[in-house]
Amino acid sequence: MEIKVLRNILSANDQIASDNRKLLDSKKVFAVNIMSSPGAGKTTVILETVRRFRGRAKTGVIEGDVASSIDAEKIGKEKVPVVQINTGGACHLDAAMVSKALSNLPLDEIKLLFIENVGNLICPGEFYLGEHKKVVLLSTPEGDDKPYKYPLLFKIADGILVTKTDLLPHLNFKIDNLVKAVRSINQKAEIIPLSAMTGEGMENWISWLTNGIR
Amino acid sequence: MEIKVLRNILSANDQIASDNRKLLDSKKVFAVNIMSSPGAGKTTVILETVRRFRGRAKTGVIEGDVASSIDAEKIGKEKVPVVQINTGGACHLDAAMVSKALSNLPLDEIKLLFIENVGNLICPGEFYLGEHKKVVLLSTPEGDDKPYKYPLLFKIADGILVTKTDLLPHLNFKIDNLVKAVRSINQKAEIIPLSAMTGEGMENWISWLTNGIR
Repeated sequence: MEIKVLRNILSANDQIASDNRKLLDSKKVFAVNIMSSPGAGKTTVILETVRRFRGRAKTGVIEGDVASSIDAEKIGKEKVPVVQINTGGACHLDAAMVSKALSNLPLDEIKLLFIENVGNLICPGEFYLGEHKKVVLLSTPEGDDKPYKYPLLFKIADGILVTKTDLLPHLNFKIDNLVKAVRSINQKAEIIPLSAMTGEGMENWISWLTNGIR
Repeated sequence: MEIKVLRNILSANDQIASDNRKLLDSKKVFAVNIMSSPGAGKTTVILETVRRFRGRAKTGVIEGDVASSIDAEKIGKEKVPVVQINTGGACHLDAAMVSKALSNLPLDEIKLLFIENVGNLICPGEFYLGEHKKVVLLSTPEGDDKPYKYPLLFKIADGILVTKTDLLPHLNFKIDNLVKAVRSINQKAEIIPLSAMTGEGMENWISWLTNGIR
């Protein structure tokens, strides 16, 4: 019975996600679902990315958190459209939450939309939101073995950002090990090491995103 | 209907957890549920703790992961009893999984049992496993604002380990901010900053655990 209920939930979610996708396509908005563990740097990377697209493409942000509006307040200071979703307790965004957020964003203006998911390396992988690309962040302090332990997100990712590379000199993290772990389950994902602090690798990420903008 | 199903699941879980607790009490095993984001250092802290209790109290470990047996293999090298649970996809351990693991451990010998939960700062908070204490790790690279964004785990924690303090010189993390964030929802939890790498703070953690051993 549990399994049947879960299937019904996922099927209803996919229907709404498909509607989200049609809306985004009709407005020519490129939407990216940003997923990671808590504290891997999602908000910081989005902030730095929004700054770099200023004057080149209009951006917008949907912020997902269990509680608080800390992240939306940070993004709001950049004067870009932002909507905060609080899930109350749920460990991921779902398509209905995103649908509601989309109705509160100026989609005619936005070319690039970031959907920052709840900080969680497991649950968000089950829920399609209507996005064009799935991007997973792994911060270097988390360790290079994470794709073995949390395979789903790394398997479905279109892009993988290895964040906080500025900390590498202080850590036992090997980029080669991470690439090997990712490639054992995902041959196609673009893997981009970067540091939002120093700016290292940010141009590769910007260029990857630019390819998706219509 | 979703809510009713969830309630039934939680109620069935609590019944099994209560049986786990009776078993642990009858065997005088002190059980600690260790929870955190992926990569916060749960396995490393457990490894260092097991080493420090050698010759003082027999330890045992239950390792919970979505996939892989990497962590159990690391612990196994220390020659302490260890059981790996793979949840397959579930974002937390539940009492039935722990019950099965307990039946595969020499409980007559073990005085201190670590139950390493799945790396997740949200879901494990909903599931009582029969443990005596709940311990949450927050690694310094995750940021000092996490209790505001993921309140449940920090609210129910008996102990909070602030891990990877060796990285503090390279981060914008303030222990005072973290303490303030925790105290806004939890007045009683013991907050212990430590580094399993340098050993700083480990004696406070060992002493906190020692108080629970019968």
